[in-house]
Amino acid sequence: MPAYLNDKFLENDEAMLHVSDLSMQRGYAVFDFFRTINGVPLFIADHLDRFYASAISLHLIVRKNNGELATIIHELIKRSSLSEAGIRLMLTGGYSSDNYHPAEPNLLITCNPVQTATQPDFEKGYSIITHEYQRELPNVKSINYLMAVWLQPLMKEKQVDDILYVRNGIISEFPRSNVFIITKDNKLVTPAHNILAGVTRKNVMALAAEKMAVQERDITTEELMNAAEVFLTSTTKRILPIVKIDNKIIGNGKPGKITTVLYEAFLELEDSFVQFVSR
Amino acid sequence: MPAYLNDKFLENDEAMLHVSDLSMQRGYAVFDFFRTINGVPLFIADHLDRFYASAISLHLIVRKNNGELATIIHELIKRSSLSEAGIRLMLTGGYSSDNYHPAEPNLLITCNPVQTATQPDFEKGYSIITHEYQRELPNVKSINYLMAVWLQPLMKEKQVDDILYVRNGIISEFPRSNVFIITKDNKLVTPAHNILAGVTRKNVMALAAEKMAVQERDITTEELMNAAEVFLTSTTKRILPIVKIDNKIIGNGKPGKITTVLYEAFLELEDSFVQFVSR
Repeated sequence: MPAYLNDKFLENDEAMLHVSDLSMQRGYAVFDFFRTINGVPLFIADHLDRFYASAISLHLIVRKNNGELATIIHELIKRSSLSEAGIRLMLTGGYSSDNYHPAEPNLLITCNPVQTATQPDFEKGYSIITHEYQRELPNVKSINYLMAVWLQPLMKEKQVDDILYVRNGIISEFPRSNVFIITKDNKLVTPAHNILAGVTRKNVMALAAEKMAVQERDITTEELMNAAEVFLTSTTKRILPIVKIDNKIIGNGKPGKITTVLYEAFLELEDSFVQFVSR
Repeated sequence: MPAYLNDKFLENDEAMLHVSDLSMQRGYAVFDFFRTINGVPLFIADHLDRFYASAISLHLIVRKNNGELATIIHELIKRSSLSEAGIRLMLTGGYSSDNYHPAEPNLLITCNPVQTATQPDFEKGYSIITHEYQRELPNVKSINYLMAVWLQPLMKEKQVDDILYVRNGIISEFPRSNVFIITKDNKLVTPAHNILAGVTRKNVMALAAEKMAVQERDITTEELMNAAEVFLTSTTKRILPIVKIDNKIIGNGKPGKITTVLYEAFLELEDSFVQFVSR
């Protein structure tokens, strides 16, 4: 697979960084991730916007503008010959002379095969647990997944598919996905604060707004547990129903009606996006 | 400078990791750091113990035992020809096939020149600010310094030397140092919880215990601001007086008497340790 590192295309195998990079020394780097369908990068403008915003938040400078990044990404997709790929952009704190202060950032873009959630995954739904935690600098897509990776053995032990972060009784997000509830009076609600602003989240909110009331606000764990439907959104999972939380069945334990309608609408949105761009 | 990566000695310039390593993908790695004097690694046993403990906490396996690591470290020190060096051990989450789940860890040991705080640094003391934050998995020496690096511009703006983390009115630690206060009734007190167990901290507590009451317990910001003396401890800074906090002068704004006594005792401890090992 091809990759791009600091002005050069190279083979993914050759994409190495020296250990003085601040990503390895101090976990200091931002990234973004999106998919392609038929070689079309999905919602690339939103992902690039977020990538720049994350970089600015960490005081890191992207030395390429929007158009330059898009050109590199399209060239990578072409070289990969993949029709469905995962594109990952990363900007690190650079080769720090004292292992602590940021230097000139390293920019890396990779293009690899990607797995997405399937129709059977949707039909089965996810069983999850909640966990007391709040991500640091939550609006930044940093590489800090210390807690998420550390919790993997707990997920295995509890035989669950994901973990929802909660702080002081207010839910926020999953390690790599946003959370939505549908209230018993048919409102779509998603946390407003202390989250990463997901691109799928944004699209789902826009789709839902055509049909129902949509609210961004705090959600308590009590409200979550008593919701009519719960689902998560992410780039690789699109929309996935949550059917069990902390061993309590949500709704009737199957994908809810509104969740299903939104899922189908989102698949259509992907299709129309790809058709529109390919036209 | 020489380095050691996965069973091989190599030049530091060649110490590269592939970008699929979980340190770069998800900030998932542990490390430890200590100094040498006259080629003698200071308090190496404590640092290796902590390195293994950090690795176990993150479910990572060190494929070398204590004696093997010590042998590699001594060989590195010899090859470096440095009499005073900083040794950094790092164990990462490895080359993850899905960029999320840990794989076989990468073990890296580097040996570089090191700068320590000087006598003038001690005499001048540090001006600091407090900041609301609690490190994740605080007893693990992980590479997560996202907040610490992110706060560097604030430190510059406020013209301070360091930042003390506080959560809900209880102080914990600096990004890379432990904190101590001396109360007006001459007790040495240091936070008990939510901190990294520093090796210098341990040594200073042992030295102090010969002369005065030593307590590990919660310390409020109010108690901090009204302490007779405040200082920090770390591997590279040994003991540094804190003379100003959030613009309030501590004590008479100069290194305190007890801080100075402990500092001198610590310098003697270093000397005797080196002499003992070199004998």
